[in-house]
Amino acid sequence: MDRVPVLKLGDVLIVSIQVDLQDQGVLALQEDLADAVVATGARGVIIDITAVEIVDSFIGRMLATIASISRMLDAETVVVGMRPAVAITLVELGLSLGGVRTALNLEKGVALLNSSEDTQIAAAAR
Amino acid sequence: MDRVPVLKLGDVLIVSIQVDLQDQGVLALQEDLADAVVATGARGVIIDITAVEIVDSFIGRMLATIASISRMLDAETVVVGMRPAVAITLVELGLSLGGVRTALNLEKGVALLNSSEDTQIAAAAR
Repeated sequence: MDRVPVLKLGDVLIVSIQVDLQDQGVLALQEDLADAVVATGARGVIIDITAVEIVDSFIGRMLATIASISRMLDAETVVVGMRPAVAITLVELGLSLGGVRTALNLEKGVALLNSSEDTQIAAAAR
Repeated sequence: MDRVPVLKLGDVLIVSIQVDLQDQGVLALQEDLADAVVATGARGVIIDITAVEIVDSFIGRMLATIASISRMLDAETVVVGMRPAVAITLVELGLSLGGVRTALNLEKGVALLNSSEDTQIAAAAR
């Protein structure tokens, strides 16, 4: 059980991070996720970090990198389920996760992706 | 990171099992899931076991127990993402997971829950 599963639901991919990822695991996740975005044509990636209790600059960078890769592949990343302590630590570390959108939970993350889709369609129709 | 997160999406709860659960972890998951079913009024529970590569009778029993608890609380359980090797092992162990519905992936699991909901509504309307 060393790979984090990438779940697909509609045109959104869901990743729930539950294990302490080391370098190898992060690289594998980034690869799996990039492959999945291309294979499925997903327009959104939701990273759930409900289970993450302690965060460091390594995880902060991982989230930013995943968001950048997804953006290259035309998918938007939303980080959901962040604990208050994790948010405090990230800010204290100077990692404000620029470019990564956040939502309180999975439902709100999906709603956020849907609403930005609508905005894009409206903008394209103009 | 010792608790498996229970994600809510609409009236479905999603649990992705990624770590080797020991007795304590299984009990915690069963409690969290039962609490979440009651708190959210969820009508379906989806257990994703994509990341589970090796299965034993312990995990097989856990899945059956979660399904029984959910049924008591008026929610249906669907196990998704089972690997072929896991299916073979479960049958060889004599664990056919009676009472647990399965689907190939998360999408099909959600579709299964929606279709059985429709059937129930149709049956109730008769």
